[in-house]
Amino acid sequence: MAADADAKLVELEQRLQALEDREKIRETLARYSFTADMGRSREYVENYTDDGTIDLGPSTKWSGHEELTDFITDPAGGHKAIEGRCMHTSVNTFIRVEGDAAWAEGYSVVYTKEGEGYGVYTLGYNHWTFKKKDGRWLLAYRHRRPVGGDEWGGDVIKEFLDG
Amino acid sequence: MAADADAKLVELEQRLQALEDREKIRETLARYSFTADMGRSREYVENYTDDGTIDLGPSTKWSGHEELTDFITDPAGGHKAIEGRCMHTSVNTFIRVEGDAAWAEGYSVVYTKEGEGYGVYTLGYNHWTFKKKDGRWLLAYRHRRPVGGDEWGGDVIKEFLDG
Amino acid sequence: MAADADAKLVELEQRLQALEDREKIRETLARYSFTADMGRSREYVENYTDDGTIDLGPSTKWSGHEELTDFITDPAGGHKAIEGRCMHTSVNTFIRVEGDAAWAEGYSVVYTKEGEGYGVYTLGYNHWTFKKKDGRWLLAYRHRRPVGGDEWGGDVIKEFLDG
Repeated sequence: MAADADAKLVELEQRLQALEDREKIRETLARYSFTADMGRSREYVENYTDDGTIDLGPSTKWSGHEELTDFITDPAGGHKAIEGRCMHTSVNTFIRVEGDAAWAEGYSVVYTKEGEGYGVYTLGYNHWTFKKKDGRWLLAYRHRRPVGGDEWGGDVIKEFLDG
Repeated sequence: MAADADAKLVELEQRLQALEDREKIRETLARYSFTADMGRSREYVENYTDDGTIDLGPSTKWSGHEELTDFITDPAGGHKAIEGRCMHTSVNTFIRVEGDAAWAEGYSVVYTKEGEGYGVYTLGYNHWTFKKKDGRWLLAYRHRRPVGGDEWGGDVIKEFLDG
Repeated sequence: MAADADAKLVELEQRLQALEDREKIRETLARYSFTADMGRSREYVENYTDDGTIDLGPSTKWSGHEELTDFITDPAGGHKAIEGRCMHTSVNTFIRVEGDAAWAEGYSVVYTKEGEGYGVYTLGYNHWTFKKKDGRWLLAYRHRRPVGGDEWGGDVIKEFLDG
């Protein structure tokens, strides 16, 4: 066997781990959507780090599990207005992992049932950061701005240029 | 070379295989959409196991290749009403593989051309099971319920909680 | 260690590389969308090979960086009409890699903000080819036809049948 076989094994495991991490980060985003849409508020909040933040707009931002619980359970809030008839999705997700930290950039589309039909409820540009804890990737920060809003999407989605 | 190199090689191959299986399962879902949208009825049906089932609602369920052929080719059926102007997609797909069996949970969105415009035709919550046969992953069961329907999506999409 | 360990290492690296290539090709498609939507015209064009082509319909085709720059920057063109309020996405992407060449088949959905609401702007069937240059996957040709148009989608999306 080649003398550098040990080094090659280490290299292959690192590259494999990088792909596994990306897969798990996509699962964290799927879990985010499932728990929001199914009204699983506790599991939704547990998908974030302790100081996790959702930043949906200049004046709409929640940090930490207590505020995140308010965000997702408030009877008068934006989420309860659509829960049970909504579908949160993320697409075009571009991911970079560095050790136990990671970031992703991509698009979010929320669909809803409206009367007897279906439609697009919101469109967002996103930059997410993640932290790995006990083998699981948690959401640390979601920076999201609406498509066609006052802020340029290029201020949200930009790290991919160097990625 | 380290004494445990053989064991490490076996471990790496298993982890690699797990990622390859997920990729192939996503391809099975893409193939499902392509064959439905392109009117390739034979290939659509062959994407299922012999006793494969599509369960779209409490009273709309087809099992086995004969019934699946009826479902996809019936001139008076729901599929023929949109074939040629539709696009079936699956997103937020969460996959678990165990040997030659697998399941996935996620969302389906069907879009259609309507007149000169385009829109969202249906939205569904899904739990799929798959079986591997001759190196290819086939659909065994699709349990799908509409978004905003009578049944709670959390009865369809739930295994991810332990995944 | 087993006598065939070297051969196994080579095999595992090739399989790993195949998954990494697919991931990078998905990133090329994400980069395509990000640069188009953010108005990053130079980076949009650099995402193509020197003779890269976008073929959106029988009479709407641009080849090479000069024409592609025209396509994406023309003040009277189709892209400028929606830039700043649009979101290009690709889903159901089926990929095959052969050395430094690759192809993919799948769906494209463009969403826009319309007034105070959001909607589906276009739907497309796609066959893309890619070339690897200096470790990066570039778009060589995009063959796209609209859903529900004059041409059958099965003329665009068909290589997956043998894939």
